[in-house]
Amino acid sequence: MDLWYTEKQTDAFGITAKVKRTLDEKQTDFQKLDMIETEEWGNMLVLDGMVMTTERDEFVYHEMISHVPLFTHPNPKQVLVVGGGDGGVIREVLKHPSVEKAVLAEIDGDVIASSKKYLPTIAGALDDPRVDVQVGDGFMHIAESENKYDVILVDSTEPVGPAVNLFTKGFYAGISKALKPDGIFVAQTDNPWFKADLIKTVQQDVKEIFPNTKLYTANIPTYPSGLWTFTIGSKTYDPIEDQRTAEIETKYYTKALHAASFALPKFVEDLTK
Amino acid sequence: MDLWYTEKQTDAFGITAKVKRTLDEKQTDFQKLDMIETEEWGNMLVLDGMVMTTERDEFVYHEMISHVPLFTHPNPKQVLVVGGGDGGVIREVLKHPSVEKAVLAEIDGDVIASSKKYLPTIAGALDDPRVDVQVGDGFMHIAESENKYDVILVDSTEPVGPAVNLFTKGFYAGISKALKPDGIFVAQTDNPWFKADLIKTVQQDVKEIFPNTKLYTANIPTYPSGLWTFTIGSKTYDPIEDQRTAEIETKYYTKALHAASFALPKFVEDLTK
Repeated sequence: MDLWYTEKQTDAFGITAKVKRTLDEKQTDFQKLDMIETEEWGNMLVLDGMVMTTERDEFVYHEMISHVPLFTHPNPKQVLVVGGGDGGVIREVLKHPSVEKAVLAEIDGDVIASSKKYLPTIAGALDDPRVDVQVGDGFMHIAESENKYDVILVDSTEPVGPAVNLFTKGFYAGISKALKPDGIFVAQTDNPWFKADLIKTVQQDVKEIFPNTKLYTANIPTYPSGLWTFTIGSKTYDPIEDQRTAEIETKYYTKALHAASFALPKFVEDLTK
Repeated sequence: MDLWYTEKQTDAFGITAKVKRTLDEKQTDFQKLDMIETEEWGNMLVLDGMVMTTERDEFVYHEMISHVPLFTHPNPKQVLVVGGGDGGVIREVLKHPSVEKAVLAEIDGDVIASSKKYLPTIAGALDDPRVDVQVGDGFMHIAESENKYDVILVDSTEPVGPAVNLFTKGFYAGISKALKPDGIFVAQTDNPWFKADLIKTVQQDVKEIFPNTKLYTANIPTYPSGLWTFTIGSKTYDPIEDQRTAEIETKYYTKALHAASFALPKFVEDLTK
């Protein structure tokens, strides 16, 4: 039988991927979880009908959300990842020798369990002794933290379902409080082709709280439009001027791409003004 | 009826777009031509089952294949476009006031006719008095030209069907001969996720002929993987060091993005070595 997984990324456009078999499928306490084995992308995690990560292209997202802030901060020691139950962001964070502790605040324990079983090259890092996995509400974790983290990475789903609170001004204010005085945060902020208004709103909201607010991009083939954005808010350091460099093994991020990823297409640049 | 156009970009992955109606459909002398009206992308030109251009995202490809070389050459006057029957590259070329003549060598007159009818905002530029439309074999046009052009842009389909000769070392040698001693050429060279070998081969072939050979990228949502590459070969000028700037109206290209588009993801950079 010829099985294809088709995701409508908008009402009128989507992607379709040939499926070998379904590995896991359940309604968790928070969302619909599907783990499928695809021919083109390897194992693929789908939440509420949206591709979260695939074995083949996961490195782009995970490297770019992590290394840009971690190579901006001069000495990141305490790092929080909100969401990110697949473990990919944690894996990249741990590549930085300065990091002493990486906390994962993931609301859905089933995402962690399924990722450990079916995405071992991504989730394996969660067993590292420097990692503190906390299954719980990231929003509450932020609200209860003060002056604690050097870097906070918001690896959320889209602003529907469990992640809806993670795209609010109150959340960004909480992040600012949870960060140390020279802290930095990055949030994934969807794509400029179909979600221009979201990017614009987040930029405006974050700018009110963080003196250095910028947008950068990366190419993620299994995400809508292939062009993904990340919003970075920094209290002290400038993500371009203060870029550190160090040898690190990557498949996407490079020293040159760090700054270049902030050079935006004109129609995307316009969303940040 | 709910109609969707699905393009298998590989054997196991593709895109799918909701269709309002079919505007044009024919077997030309060279390929299968479909012009469809889609909900997400506006009118869409499909050749041999591959999306060539759409009204909504065409500006990316057309701006990036044109402005990078035309802002590298100090004074481009004579420009040749091989392929590009939809007229989008010509439209961008004409934005440069130095250009005196822009020749279009398109093998398939039906592509031009259908584009003029159904993609008027793209093909309208073909009626400009500076444009010389020649319906014929671009490979032969190149072979018969010597020391003639400042810039040559190869806006071809994939290396199947009528475009197969346009991805050969003999063609690049012909381009070198057709260019003036300080000429520049750019060819679209597909995507690094599914066509890595092609990019690698073209880089090697072009490097043997052009002292300055580089690769740059752009995000095109309706093309496979969303990450498109362009190979630039230049006799004299360096596409980064010699970048000129001037005011020009664009939706994707910017002065900063010109250089930034040469900062490649690590796995793409590796294809150029």
